[in-house]
Amino acid sequence: MDDHQAVSANNPDACFVGVDFGTLSGRALVVRARDGAELGTAVHEYAHGVMDAELAATGEPLPPDWALQDPEDYRDVLRHAVPAAVADAGIDPSLVAGIGTDFTACTVLPASADGTPLCQLPGLAGRPHAYPKLWKHHAGQPQADRINALAHERREAWIVRYGGKISSEWEFAKGLQLLEEDPEIYQRADRWIEAADWIIWQLTGTETRNACTAGYKGIRQDGRYPSREFLAALDPRFAGFAADKLEHAVLPLGARAGSLTEQAAAWTGLPEGIAVAVGNVDAHVTPPAAAAIEPGQMVAIMGTSTCHVMNGERLAVVPGMCGVVDGGIVAGLWGYEAGQSGVGDIFAWFADHAVPPEYHDEARRRGIGLHELLSQEAAAQPAGAHGLIALDWLNGNRSVLVDHHLSGAIIGLTLATRAPDIYRALVESTAFGTRVIIDTFADSGIPVTELVIAGGLTKNDFVLQVYADVTRRPLSVIASDQGPALGSAIHAAVAAGWYPDVHAASAAMGAKHQAVYLPDPASADVYDRLYAEYRLLHDYFGRGGNAVMHRLRGVRDRVLRSAPAAAERSGGRA
Amino acid sequence: MDDHQAVSANNPDACFVGVDFGTLSGRALVVRARDGAELGTAVHEYAHGVMDAELAATGEPLPPDWALQDPEDYRDVLRHAVPAAVADAGIDPSLVAGIGTDFTACTVLPASADGTPLCQLPGLAGRPHAYPKLWKHHAGQPQADRINALAHERREAWIVRYGGKISSEWEFAKGLQLLEEDPEIYQRADRWIEAADWIIWQLTGTETRNACTAGYKGIRQDGRYPSREFLAALDPRFAGFAADKLEHAVLPLGARAGSLTEQAAAWTGLPEGIAVAVGNVDAHVTPPAAAAIEPGQMVAIMGTSTCHVMNGERLAVVPGMCGVVDGGIVAGLWGYEAGQSGVGDIFAWFADHAVPPEYHDEARRRGIGLHELLSQEAAAQPAGAHGLIALDWLNGNRSVLVDHHLSGAIIGLTLATRAPDIYRALVESTAFGTRVIIDTFADSGIPVTELVIAGGLTKNDFVLQVYADVTRRPLSVIASDQGPALGSAIHAAVAAGWYPDVHAASAAMGAKHQAVYLPDPASADVYDRLYAEYRLLHDYFGRGGNAVMHRLRGVRDRVLRSAPAAAERSGGRA
Repeated sequence: MDDHQAVSANNPDACFVGVDFGTLSGRALVVRARDGAELGTAVHEYAHGVMDAELAATGEPLPPDWALQDPEDYRDVLRHAVPAAVADAGIDPSLVAGIGTDFTACTVLPASADGTPLCQLPGLAGRPHAYPKLWKHHAGQPQADRINALAHERREAWIVRYGGKISSEWEFAKGLQLLEEDPEIYQRADRWIEAADWIIWQLTGTETRNACTAGYKGIRQDGRYPSREFLAALDPRFAGFAADKLEHAVLPLGARAGSLTEQAAAWTGLPEGIAVAVGNVDAHVTPPAAAAIEPGQMVAIMGTSTCHVMNGERLAVVPGMCGVVDGGIVAGLWGYEAGQSGVGDIFAWFADHAVPPEYHDEARRRGIGLHELLSQEAAAQPAGAHGLIALDWLNGNRSVLVDHHLSGAIIGLTLATRAPDIYRALVESTAFGTRVIIDTFADSGIPVTELVIAGGLTKNDFVLQVYADVTRRPLSVIASDQGPALGSAIHAAVAAGWYPDVHAASAAMGAKHQAVYLPDPASADVYDRLYAEYRLLHDYFGRGGNAVMHRLRGVRDRVLRSAPAAAERSGGRA
Repeated sequence: MDDHQAVSANNPDACFVGVDFGTLSGRALVVRARDGAELGTAVHEYAHGVMDAELAATGEPLPPDWALQDPEDYRDVLRHAVPAAVADAGIDPSLVAGIGTDFTACTVLPASADGTPLCQLPGLAGRPHAYPKLWKHHAGQPQADRINALAHERREAWIVRYGGKISSEWEFAKGLQLLEEDPEIYQRADRWIEAADWIIWQLTGTETRNACTAGYKGIRQDGRYPSREFLAALDPRFAGFAADKLEHAVLPLGARAGSLTEQAAAWTGLPEGIAVAVGNVDAHVTPPAAAAIEPGQMVAIMGTSTCHVMNGERLAVVPGMCGVVDGGIVAGLWGYEAGQSGVGDIFAWFADHAVPPEYHDEARRRGIGLHELLSQEAAAQPAGAHGLIALDWLNGNRSVLVDHHLSGAIIGLTLATRAPDIYRALVESTAFGTRVIIDTFADSGIPVTELVIAGGLTKNDFVLQVYADVTRRPLSVIASDQGPALGSAIHAAVAAGWYPDVHAASAAMGAKHQAVYLPDPASADVYDRLYAEYRLLHDYFGRGGNAVMHRLRGVRDRVLRSAPAAAERSGGRA
């Protein structure tokens, strides 16, 4: 330990800063170490946001499915949000004894050997492939398809640990796309590094890799990346991808990556030399903030989509999970991840595109939001009264079917169906989707003992009551509104040695409200029946009973390819 | 022939009046005999409209699914609409050589032996069962269910001629309901008579029965009603229902029922003694107006629902048809009827309850209707571009599944789905439903050689183009905007002897525009693929592959029975 940290860490009022790097902004949070009190916070919006239409530096249009970011925006969060949060907390910065971060993932960039993003090298600002590719950059789907096909063909052991499919969002698909589309940038990239790890390099001056992204996004299993032979079979030029650009010692979560450099101290206003925790991911850093890291405690981070993270004592293959990684959430346990591709996104789609004016007018008249009005009217119905059942696949299905070409369905419509009926059915469909995931874990020998909700949808009583009724479980809810940033602060406290491990830090600094929503037995009985219907339709449409959703998509794609003008017209309305 | 008619019928400018009694109003049309020219028209709204909430005479609330009318409203149409139409035509009333009518069906009433509706007898104005029951009175469903079950149990030969199910709307279900719920009124009803026949009684002073309603709504087949034994098995008191209250000579369509009485001449301002055609039904009177009465010419009367009527040379059992009746459309041919329970109703439901404000605003800005805007935007898409397929069962399915407990479905939704996409998918789903009916007729040996469209939806180019593309057929369209009233005038001309038969009268006075909409081959190819998907889902959800729609309805009904207050809340919004 160096002097700075020693001083702070001995102070009973010592604080830690957690920084959560999101899709459009970064948030800093100052947390008191001894009790997790959140003393101050600040947000900084990324100047360039998401570049999905054009490259800001040149105005060059970007192809469909691209999503880039500017790495300077990340540094700006350190420069602005961190000092602002400390000011908001009203503490002396010297009380801060460490900093931790979490990032969206897989957000990944090409860098030189000294950590410079290639887009910041002279002459490369105009090269799209030189920029960080945001998690939702999906243009590497053809590459992902080839990786998956080859993995199954070669019976690679790792593929089952990812539900049988790696995603176009992850390091290998994005890396292979880079190689094939801009070999020069690929060549010049000494590193292919998660933004989660790159930001730590900026804070410490030292390159590190964290167990979470290496495992979930980097296909690192049992200490190894996919083999040179496998990579060469994809493309001979790709053979050295892992060895040359990824390979690096991997540190456990909560480890100290290094100390805050003089430069980073200047950016943040924090003491030079304080502990910096290794990188982490927004979803995976949340369970410690919810005091929910014991095996069987599933944390569902519910927002536009839902990410389910849970620790298990042993390795099991759970069909359709996103991944299982040794120490992927907490060192010493197997971290399981599953997901639902569309949740809040679906409710927003419905509110934006399928609700008639009378509801908008009434919400305005009553001074409430449209979602609140729909929730109130939907909540006034008894379960089952609308006669509907929906499949929540409007954005595809991640777990447990791992099929992004599925689509949504609503069954049971009549001339008496009204907007709150459909709204309720859509909310229920996402709850059924969660129950499928929970059941699949249980069937695979990884029982879920407690369901803890975090994320933006924790504010919606109606949604959570439906989830309690559908899953027939009491729901716990994370106490903090800033789960990821608090989780990052917890990891900083561990990295600094304030707590011996994440378990101790989580117990002291994290919190949840237990059993906030209790299942209503009458509703739960109705939902048992509707869940049986959901499962039947789920398997019929999702497991090959009727591949109509794939065929409809095929027809659509063929039609649009041969009629691009019409497609544009049809897609012209927001 | 009496004097009045002889005079007019010799005049080359002779005219005939057709009167179409609809659900909310009656329309009279003055038509020149020699060429079908429509010279004048007028509408009279029923003062009591549809009594489905309370009985006007007493304010007594009516139970769910009831729908009554006041017979005086029908007489008022004769008093007001007929003279107004003649005035509108600007002709001397003495030029009118006959009158014909058509009615909604099965609209049926109890009457005394002299034709007085029981509700007009002293002391009976407060008895709901003494009033005409409108076609859409559905409270006799339990009785219909028992009739169907018994018919199948006893293997009654007639049941297959009604697609295996008679409707709660028809004479026997409504009659049995009357018996069981108000035996005194049943007892006092000397006649149980279609309003179609009752109005002729008012015009002529003579009781008649027409072949159309007797066959389609009265289960009269091969000259016989269901047997006394069958009726007694339903209820011993019902044994004489057909013999005592229905039985009467049945006249062919276009026959002369009698001559206009002095009283009816005073009501209408028409010459006393002119010919009055036997009663008829709005749908079945339409093919002559469209010059489409040859075997194989299917007339689809498209409005809130669709009725398909077509002549055939021989008797065949077509699965799921509404009925096949000897002379049911034109004497000497077998009249086939099929139907789709929801068509325009579905489009209206969508426009009213699922379209966001931006489209309402844009339609207002452009000074067009919402349907027109949605149609324009939907029409701008190539077929298949929305990636959706829908089942058009929001109001159940009449043909060919004969299952009113089915419900609607939409498959293929994504976050990119917009209102015009769903609108188009719903329009297409009704076209697929029509194609199923056409295919079923063909499979049963009754090929459809021409598809002729009549009804309110003839005004919607987009809808009809979709139907042409989906059925891969040129569509003909009835020339008149007043198909039923014109058809009634045609039958009047036959009854008066101006034409020897309906064929000749239809050829001279009826008309259609041929091949107005031609199938687009590229769209038709796409629709062949989507139709295959529709059939697959149709059979899966409609033929027992997955009875989820029935079960959802069952859950809904149980829930609502046990939570009536919540049900009311949920149903409170219009």
